[in-house]
Amino acid sequence: MHRLCSVVVLFLLMPVCHARGTGDLGIVIERASGSVQVIETSTNTSLGSIDGLGDLSHASAVYSRDGRYAYVFGRDGGLTRLDILSMKIDKRVIQSGNSIGGAISQDGRLVAVSNYEPGGVKIFDASTLKLVADIPAVYGNDKQQSKVIGLVDAPGQKFIFSLWDAGEIWVADMSKADNPEITKYKDIGQNPYDALITPDGRYYIAGLFGEDGMALLDLWNLETGVKRILDGYGKGEQKLPVYKMPHLEGWAIAGNYAFVPAVGHHEVLVIDTLSWTEAGRIKVHGQPVFVMSRPDGRNIWVNFAVPDNDTLQIIDTQSLKIVKTLKPGKGVLHMEFEPRGEEVWASVRDEDRLAVFDTETFEQVTTIDAEKPSGIFMTYRAHRTGL
Amino acid sequence: MHRLCSVVVLFLLMPVCHARGTGDLGIVIERASGSVQVIETSTNTSLGSIDGLGDLSHASAVYSRDGRYAYVFGRDGGLTRLDILSMKIDKRVIQSGNSIGGAISQDGRLVAVSNYEPGGVKIFDASTLKLVADIPAVYGNDKQQSKVIGLVDAPGQKFIFSLWDAGEIWVADMSKADNPEITKYKDIGQNPYDALITPDGRYYIAGLFGEDGMALLDLWNLETGVKRILDGYGKGEQKLPVYKMPHLEGWAIAGNYAFVPAVGHHEVLVIDTLSWTEAGRIKVHGQPVFVMSRPDGRNIWVNFAVPDNDTLQIIDTQSLKIVKTLKPGKGVLHMEFEPRGEEVWASVRDEDRLAVFDTETFEQVTTIDAEKPSGIFMTYRAHRTGL
Repeated sequence: MHRLCSVVVLFLLMPVCHARGTGDLGIVIERASGSVQVIETSTNTSLGSIDGLGDLSHASAVYSRDGRYAYVFGRDGGLTRLDILSMKIDKRVIQSGNSIGGAISQDGRLVAVSNYEPGGVKIFDASTLKLVADIPAVYGNDKQQSKVIGLVDAPGQKFIFSLWDAGEIWVADMSKADNPEITKYKDIGQNPYDALITPDGRYYIAGLFGEDGMALLDLWNLETGVKRILDGYGKGEQKLPVYKMPHLEGWAIAGNYAFVPAVGHHEVLVIDTLSWTEAGRIKVHGQPVFVMSRPDGRNIWVNFAVPDNDTLQIIDTQSLKIVKTLKPGKGVLHMEFEPRGEEVWASVRDEDRLAVFDTETFEQVTTIDAEKPSGIFMTYRAHRTGL
Repeated sequence: MHRLCSVVVLFLLMPVCHARGTGDLGIVIERASGSVQVIETSTNTSLGSIDGLGDLSHASAVYSRDGRYAYVFGRDGGLTRLDILSMKIDKRVIQSGNSIGGAISQDGRLVAVSNYEPGGVKIFDASTLKLVADIPAVYGNDKQQSKVIGLVDAPGQKFIFSLWDAGEIWVADMSKADNPEITKYKDIGQNPYDALITPDGRYYIAGLFGEDGMALLDLWNLETGVKRILDGYGKGEQKLPVYKMPHLEGWAIAGNYAFVPAVGHHEVLVIDTLSWTEAGRIKVHGQPVFVMSRPDGRNIWVNFAVPDNDTLQIIDTQSLKIVKTLKPGKGVLHMEFEPRGEEVWASVRDEDRLAVFDTETFEQVTTIDAEKPSGIFMTYRAHRTGL
């Protein structure tokens, strides 16, 4: 009885130990079920799902500097700190009415969320999720409040973001976390819809929806202000209705080129990042949504908006030619490369699965069940400015 | 008695759980004591030391793809797989007589070690440390065996390395792990002493000790062979005796420039990576050993060989001027930037400490005791080609 009692007590009280490296983990947004699946990329398996994240119909994520926690930003204004080792929600707050993105500061201590409603940015302590600062996106004589998009972190403990309604770019220096120092750049162009920061953290580039062009800010020379690049790139071409906003993120850069979606066209624009002029345009299968470079910059993978979202195209960055067209299935919403680039994961939403491809042979190596998967975010992002 | 017994049994048998993120960890080589200290960079503390790694008078390390295991390559030919979560040696083999460096393959399945004696490269299974392939560095008519240096991993599951005695560069394709496909480039220059691969994994650059110049291999266009760059850069200048070999590693690249030590001179060479020609040279305090870019490429930090190894200099990459000289103490052997670049760690060997600096203000933020510290390796390297 004595011995049995000891053993029983032992089993009842032994903690479940979740020790493993976090460097090969990732999360997949399951957009219809408010859940997140945790995956590992060493043997390409699922580690399970976590429920209770609210409205993830549009969601993105960033990682804590140790790679253990994912901060998930949900459409309903939910901000969830997810423990991907223990597979549970660590903390969750509803911080606005309608939200679309977020970022984590250079030192990992602050999480910023960009909101549509009320328009602005809120800054939280990354450990406690307590509100540290509130930056309403107020502009103009009538003190209106703008939707905020294109939020990124930048070196020097900064956050940078754009105001869709106002046509402005703001730089927030968070060196004193409870008292942000804001610098505003006005009249940067009509309706910035998204932005990226180059992987070195030097250039912030906002795409414009209201006109053909992009706005460039050199963070090493802020006094020179915002410069217009690729002005009128769509001139002379019929612009198509846009059903799905394209996305900009830092992995569009390969060598000295940036590859970005041409809004409203079946084209990828190639930008020479030495001169910030157009270096070419590549006709593609449909309207690009994500244009992503393989980590070594050897090729670019592109997915598309409806009705062409069953297709992936791969462009060689030396020849600027399409080298492969893949048809994984309907609803290829998102891609994510493993950090050293040997494989890439794609969400195939309408087939409820993830497809993993070899990036040399373009063969599918495995498939994993997922419920209406969309965004895929791997932990290497913990160590990258702007991701 | 019954209850006490249960509690005692519980405490005796409860496993120690080491669950934490691995993304903010690092190791420090303690060169005189054959030990390795594990540090964390979120609050800048030491997590303890691990003994039993043999001769670490010269040592380097790479990480498993999940960030949990460090592979430490020691001067005595020791290859140690270290579990930095459990703080213990996982596996250890003595695989040669004299060894100086190693690399991990793109997919994380193979670990390669470059040996002086016998000269060549050995390839091991990254999980079991079982020998998978042996590549003796045999060259010339007399079938001599050369010391191997400059070993890196490259995209496409390759390892690349140079032969000091032979003046050759070899590319090993490890797609079939037990049957490497070797391509040899001969007559690349006298005594390549180290090499780097650019962060995108495109260019392999070997420094030459026997002559002033570097050898460049474009991995996207291997058929064009090895090209000589910066030929005769030291012409007209008195070459000084070299007491400590400089080092080359991928973090010498900042934007379109590469910053490398000029062997035998008190200079850093600036290379324009678009044309591979000299863009400038910067006179510095002593003979540079490590020339390292801050992750955003804004400035370059340089340390020096004896008798100047008490100094660090910081160069601004826009002006190419020295903006700061620091005197941390005698024996500043190595530096490592935190992945988003806000702080940098330096070994101050002769003061038995690590110094952590803020990379904007250049102020020291903390100091941590360490026994004769040398190399510092953080886990972000798990996700970077060539590191």
